[in-house]
Amino acid sequence: MTQTYPTAEKAAELLERVRVRRPRVHCLMNTVVQKFTADGITVIGAIPSMTSSPDEIADFVSKADVLTVNLGTLDAERRNVIERAVEIANDAGKPWILDPVHCDYSPSRLAFARTLIARRPSVVRGNKAEMALIGKTGDILGIETGAADQLTDGTRSVTVRNGHRWMAEVTGTGCLSGGVIAAFLTVEPDALAAATAALAATGVAAEQAAEFARGPGSFGVAFLDTLSALTPEALRKAARIDHDH
Amino acid sequence: MTQTYPTAEKAAELLERVRVRRPRVHCLMNTVVQKFTADGITVIGAIPSMTSSPDEIADFVSKADVLTVNLGTLDAERRNVIERAVEIANDAGKPWILDPVHCDYSPSRLAFARTLIARRPSVVRGNKAEMALIGKTGDILGIETGAADQLTDGTRSVTVRNGHRWMAEVTGTGCLSGGVIAAFLTVEPDALAAATAALAATGVAAEQAAEFARGPGSFGVAFLDTLSALTPEALRKAARIDHDH
Amino acid sequence: MTQTYPTAEKAAELLERVRVRRPRVHCLMNTVVQKFTADGITVIGAIPSMTSSPDEIADFVSKADVLTVNLGTLDAERRNVIERAVEIANDAGKPWILDPVHCDYSPSRLAFARTLIARRPSVVRGNKAEMALIGKTGDILGIETGAADQLTDGTRSVTVRNGHRWMAEVTGTGCLSGGVIAAFLTVEPDALAAATAALAATGVAAEQAAEFARGPGSFGVAFLDTLSALTPEALRKAARIDHDH
Repeated sequence: MTQTYPTAEKAAELLERVRVRRPRVHCLMNTVVQKFTADGITVIGAIPSMTSSPDEIADFVSKADVLTVNLGTLDAERRNVIERAVEIANDAGKPWILDPVHCDYSPSRLAFARTLIARRPSVVRGNKAEMALIGKTGDILGIETGAADQLTDGTRSVTVRNGHRWMAEVTGTGCLSGGVIAAFLTVEPDALAAATAALAATGVAAEQAAEFARGPGSFGVAFLDTLSALTPEALRKAARIDHDH
Repeated sequence: MTQTYPTAEKAAELLERVRVRRPRVHCLMNTVVQKFTADGITVIGAIPSMTSSPDEIADFVSKADVLTVNLGTLDAERRNVIERAVEIANDAGKPWILDPVHCDYSPSRLAFARTLIARRPSVVRGNKAEMALIGKTGDILGIETGAADQLTDGTRSVTVRNGHRWMAEVTGTGCLSGGVIAAFLTVEPDALAAATAALAATGVAAEQAAEFARGPGSFGVAFLDTLSALTPEALRKAARIDHDH
Repeated sequence: MTQTYPTAEKAAELLERVRVRRPRVHCLMNTVVQKFTADGITVIGAIPSMTSSPDEIADFVSKADVLTVNLGTLDAERRNVIERAVEIANDAGKPWILDPVHCDYSPSRLAFARTLIARRPSVVRGNKAEMALIGKTGDILGIETGAADQLTDGTRSVTVRNGHRWMAEVTGTGCLSGGVIAAFLTVEPDALAAATAALAATGVAAEQAAEFARGPGSFGVAFLDTLSALTPEALRKAARIDHDH
């Protein structure tokens, strides 16, 4: 069987599609990085919202094209809201992404992450420590972000080699990339292709930002500038996507 | 009857008064943009606070000169706190501003916004989609911010033509402008004059910031710099305030 | 009895130790400045976490090397979580710092701050208005930060004269310094020496940042850059630590 692997050309095409569609991305996002994530989603060309109250979550998810579930600063109310949001997204056939932040700190959070994975997100994205505990995600796209980003959907494996070490010194770059992946999921049914494009886009923007930043503070700011200005053509040229045969 | 319309000279005078008075602005602010709004209130020369707990709201509103009610990231507890805060502000004759964020996403939030308007804020400020649903606010100053800011108090109408397109790409510029309007309400009983001055100040600062920013990230940072450095003289010269006869 | 006073050499040594150890700093932090504080803790070389849910606080504090208790945006649930977190830290012999934000606005918050001080934090840090109400902290290290930072542990008194006036125009610099002090407490049992080093480090970074900032916005960003790049040697040379005999 011949398999299709995502390419730099495909990434460029999807970036253009996100900018044309301007999808709505609802985020159940930890309180630490709400603004940074919202800014990242906005500059990529999408429209973020962040409400997490039980009595409004249905309205917000219904209006959204995709859902981001981030487990940072989790509490009991947010768990209930997440469960409702996931149910609404699943019922409507909308994609959603799970970001199991700090599941390596708390057994109850890890257990909750696992129950959510059983409800079949399009993507699970975490860092090395988190994904080690999450384990294999079967045919659900699993992503371990780091110096290089490793993606696998159980059949195909891809490595995205873009990025910059300062990303690890700015709180929320991983959470922001989750929001950007969500935006790309709305224009491409193949989650591997969507996430590869999103991570190449954020990685290339990070490389460009590092060129005129003085340290992690100005890098975080410049990253929003370069993500906003990123052209499909620049993404096509700079994306480094490896297929792991 | 001759009516007084706000002018650039008036805006400059009010900026100076805010800086002399250093008013306390209590904000019931969505969790996404609390720091950005607090920074904006600080650099204009006022003192922000953000607590929203039921058992402390009375203390904080009592110590404040003005109240900002922002409906972003609303939940049940925050609704109760808002109602108490508004009651305290009204009883003390303190001005308050309502920012019905995302009332176009949620019917219950829109209904709540309407009950609050019945309690007579000094100002209601929203974007085009929000204000379209809010509808006419009678003799309460209604403001639709956007590429140009439209203000009307039922008798007079004003357009402020300052600003920059990058404001729409930075999450929270509208919420921040609500906090700045609040600060100006403490030095001028004519809400139209106060809000016109505040929006001219943020708009001129945005224009100045765009001159040395590279994109929306650095624009958001530069905006705080220019808002901090804005002089009454620069505001007087650059303010573009139209009276809609 | 001869007493040891902290020196610039000691500050430089402790900065190096923080960077080698990479301590975990758990923060019960007000929602306004969570990202700014997390970024500051990260760039100094430590690892922040911010969860405040009742059912996970034990896991997070157990994994941490030190605890920061910040009373901004306090509510009933957070009070309970703080009490549990403090109990866990005390039982494990882990240091913790109390930042009684805005205790001058609310009698109930002041009362709560006093009950926490009775549980013996390593450090209490506030601004002038807050520390005036807190009063003497006996043999617990009390710090009043401002144009100069005053530290006393009941026996020794130190003044750190580094810093920049723009720190007062950026929301959260005080909260961030609390997180940095916490990181230093993990590498030095003498709280006065640890806090002196931390405040000299943030103060020197602030002075460096002011050299290439245009105002408070770019200063806040540059501050993260310079804090990240701060070398023990630069800290040793620039620290201005006075002993008040």
